Amino acid sequence: MTTFYTLTELVRRFGGSLVGNADTRVRQIASLQTATANDIAFLTNPKWRGQLDTSLAAAFILAPAMADATNKPRIVTDNPYAYFAKVSGLFNPPPDMEPGIAGSAVVHPEARLGKDVRVGANVVIGCGVIIGDGARIGAGSVIGDGTVIGMQARLYANVTIYHRCVIGDRVILHSGCVIGSDGFGLAQEDGHWLKIPQIGRVVIGHDVEIGANTTVDRGALDDTIIHDGVKLDNLIQVAHNVQIGAHTAIAACAGIAGSAKIGAHCTIGGAAMIFGHIEIADGVNISTNTLITKSLPKPGSYTSTPPFAEHGEWLKNAVHMRHLDSMAKRLRALEKKMETLMENKEE
Amino acid sequence: MTTFYTLTELVRRFGGSLVGNADTRVRQIASLQTATANDIAFLTNPKWRGQLDTSLAAAFILAPAMADATNKPRIVTDNPYAYFAKVSGLFNPPPDMEPGIAGSAVVHPEARLGKDVRVGANVVIGCGVIIGDGARIGAGSVIGDGTVIGMQARLYANVTIYHRCVIGDRVILHSGCVIGSDGFGLAQEDGHWLKIPQIGRVVIGHDVEIGANTTVDRGALDDTIIHDGVKLDNLIQVAHNVQIGAHTAIAACAGIAGSAKIGAHCTIGGAAMIFGHIEIADGVNISTNTLITKSLPKPGSYTSTPPFAEHGEWLKNAVHMRHLDSMAKRLRALEKKMETLMENKEE
Amino acid sequence: MTTFYTLTELVRRFGGSLVGNADTRVRQIASLQTATANDIAFLTNPKWRGQLDTSLAAAFILAPAMADATNKPRIVTDNPYAYFAKVSGLFNPPPDMEPGIAGSAVVHPEARLGKDVRVGANVVIGCGVIIGDGARIGAGSVIGDGTVIGMQARLYANVTIYHRCVIGDRVILHSGCVIGSDGFGLAQEDGHWLKIPQIGRVVIGHDVEIGANTTVDRGALDDTIIHDGVKLDNLIQVAHNVQIGAHTAIAACAGIAGSAKIGAHCTIGGAAMIFGHIEIADGVNISTNTLITKSLPKPGSYTSTPPFAEHGEWLKNAVHMRHLDSMAKRLRALEKKMETLMENKEE
Repeated sequence: MTTFYTLTELVRRFGGSLVGNADTRVRQIASLQTATANDIAFLTNPKWRGQLDTSLAAAFILAPAMADATNKPRIVTDNPYAYFAKVSGLFNPPPDMEPGIAGSAVVHPEARLGKDVRVGANVVIGCGVIIGDGARIGAGSVIGDGTVIGMQARLYANVTIYHRCVIGDRVILHSGCVIGSDGFGLAQEDGHWLKIPQIGRVVIGHDVEIGANTTVDRGALDDTIIHDGVKLDNLIQVAHNVQIGAHTAIAACAGIAGSAKIGAHCTIGGAAMIFGHIEIADGVNISTNTLITKSLPKPGSYTSTPPFAEHGEWLKNAVHMRHLDSMAKRLRALEKKMETLMENKEE
Repeated sequence: MTTFYTLTELVRRFGGSLVGNADTRVRQIASLQTATANDIAFLTNPKWRGQLDTSLAAAFILAPAMADATNKPRIVTDNPYAYFAKVSGLFNPPPDMEPGIAGSAVVHPEARLGKDVRVGANVVIGCGVIIGDGARIGAGSVIGDGTVIGMQARLYANVTIYHRCVIGDRVILHSGCVIGSDGFGLAQEDGHWLKIPQIGRVVIGHDVEIGANTTVDRGALDDTIIHDGVKLDNLIQVAHNVQIGAHTAIAACAGIAGSAKIGAHCTIGGAAMIFGHIEIADGVNISTNTLITKSLPKPGSYTSTPPFAEHGEWLKNAVHMRHLDSMAKRLRALEKKMETLMENKEE
Repeated sequence: MTTFYTLTELVRRFGGSLVGNADTRVRQIASLQTATANDIAFLTNPKWRGQLDTSLAAAFILAPAMADATNKPRIVTDNPYAYFAKVSGLFNPPPDMEPGIAGSAVVHPEARLGKDVRVGANVVIGCGVIIGDGARIGAGSVIGDGTVIGMQARLYANVTIYHRCVIGDRVILHSGCVIGSDGFGLAQEDGHWLKIPQIGRVVIGHDVEIGANTTVDRGALDDTIIHDGVKLDNLIQVAHNVQIGAHTAIAACAGIAGSAKIGAHCTIGGAAMIFGHIEIADGVNISTNTLITKSLPKPGSYTSTPPFAEHGEWLKNAVHMRHLDSMAKRLRALEKKMETLMENKEE
């Protein structure tokens, strides 16, 4: 956090047009309210424009419509939030591990590690594992036999990957996530469950990020597939043979049941649940807590959550949910009687 | 995957009746569509029978009603799906660990390990632990003091078991699962929470499988008990003093609150939640996302989830859920008025 | 469990008034039904008072209203459940680790450990970490660079804490929990997601307990803050920049979305979900499975869950949830017609 950049340097890297003193130097990005004189701040929502006047930031990142809302130096860009992400990435590279392979790591002699791979303490790397150049394997992580990990991939501490999985380049796996565990495949016989071996793999594309304690099961016969650019939050369950299309983002606590096929560019809200064996089109948005029980062939937003209420109020209303069918029938009966009355009247 | 079996050998092991060339040799099982000439494929649903003609499989596993739907060699059995599970288990034994105890494992001198127990790198085994013959303890797993693990049990990497738990024979524990953590026991005093020591154990029967990142808390005073043959998927919470009856299967993301007693042969859908201190009969099926708030003394299927809709449509309808009581009262009022009108008319 | 205490000693430590033989000696606490002659039992609910007569306990902990319900020795206190927690804590201290730092632990030379810190096998402690006196770090846990851990804190096995986090005194972290993972911060550009560096920390106060496999993400720019005395159960997601007020308790499987601010002394039920960027007042109780979508400025209880039903019954009723708006309109139309009829009649 001690490297300063001029606005000129930022614009050269990330585009946008510069208004004001191009030599203004900044070394961190901050919100309007917390920025200090060495910071660049960003405005993503016009309703906060009033904070431009009081912000201590040295410079701002603004949308074209806000370009004249301040006299301070500023970078004008169509997408201030994406610009913020890029500038923050420049100022805040993830903390790096120490070079080399920790003495306590257990690396199988038949594993192949690329250039500048860094391996933390107590890591276990299995037979036949291949790890791409520049990858980082956090302390305590375990990588099963035959798994392939792409270049610049970053596993935080205590990640577990089972055997024979494929992880793309620049993939980020957070602590506690488990990739390649057995899918929940069971056959019933005489009231007992027989385990169905899960012999597929998990195949994860490039630039995927998977959150802490999220689980992705291996396929039963075929593979579980997560395409490029998918972002999964924490504590998500991805069952066997699921496919998740490119650049789809899924919030925490969601669950995707077996063989569901999610499209590209979808967003799935926290704790949403998706039935197995259904297909969801590209560009679908699913609300928090929503249960999707059927295929969604068209893009759009879908919701299933009842509104909350103060508990006493809720009790009064909820009891009628058990009687909606009877209410509907009584309503229909009344309508018929009313029709009869009205007809008689007209006669 | 290089061992071939004749159909005769399969029938000798698993039963069923053989039609066609008994010397047909296969070495893997596959779906009808992906099978190749060395595979046996299976048909579990009559609606896919058309694929029998085009499948490249060398042989099939079929139900009696489909016995004549192909001329190729076939094994006829009442339960093709269970048969598939067994054949697949034969062809696909789980990848095994290297024999012996890894040099980096830390095994307490007072732990007792049975014959052919295999212990992975960086495993930690506590004082007084007993591990049965043929068990497998995956890399990075930690087993607390005094815990007992049955024969042929299989812990994948990074499993955690607290002290004094009991794990049955042939139990499979997937990565990241935590067995025996403290139950959520709190007493309130002056607005603060006092911790109630959790001095019970977790006792797990034989042939149980527990998924990745699932948590099973130890009992407060008595034990948390999971009976034989129970199958738990990933990311499930089993609270203290829960009892789960034999051969019950629970899908991912479900939660069972403290002291709930679940019967045998139940199925509980994903993300279903079960209240504490209730009792659920044998043979109950609970739907995905359903919240069970009371005891269920009778077998059957139970559901509580509202249907999803396109978001705008949902908004229009959901608002009325806040007014169901008023709607019910208005309906009743109308019915009374209608009665009055009809009575007057009849007079 | 071999130390006996007289009732006099218990009352000297924890208060309450003693009735009967003050020299009665007990060495464990138990429920009325399971207590034996060396145990003290407790009665928290008058409906179990009948069990006082048959309980084998040597003594009881009772509320004033029950003081005369037995002739056996007893401690009378306004809060028998809190008293039980304290007595149990005395009788059942958590099992302790072996003194010292395990030979297999990897402790960075620039980490500073206080007096009587115990470090388990295969623990990894990063550069600049500070650990307070009397803390316990369970086997396989990983503590990132620069993190500070308070006195008498207790980390069970396989806990992961990222860099630069702050953990208060006497905090208990259960296995598999992940503290300080990146928040789910993404900006969209041309249909791709850009990662927003998460440069805040997680700051956890004193006397907090966090359950197995719970995840607490670090802040995006500012910190995620969990105040003193908060109790989190298992498998909970706490997103970036969340603030949880002192002495709030949250049950398993709940999720708190980004920047939500939860008050003090709240209780949040299992699997409840709280939207991001909302504020919840002190003293709010949220029911199991409830989704809170707006700020709650007043204490009270809030619920959103539909009641469950037998599946066939549920199907019949649920279908009408898709037509509530039309039902409401039809009801209004009938009311208007009825008004017209009634007016005509009166004329």
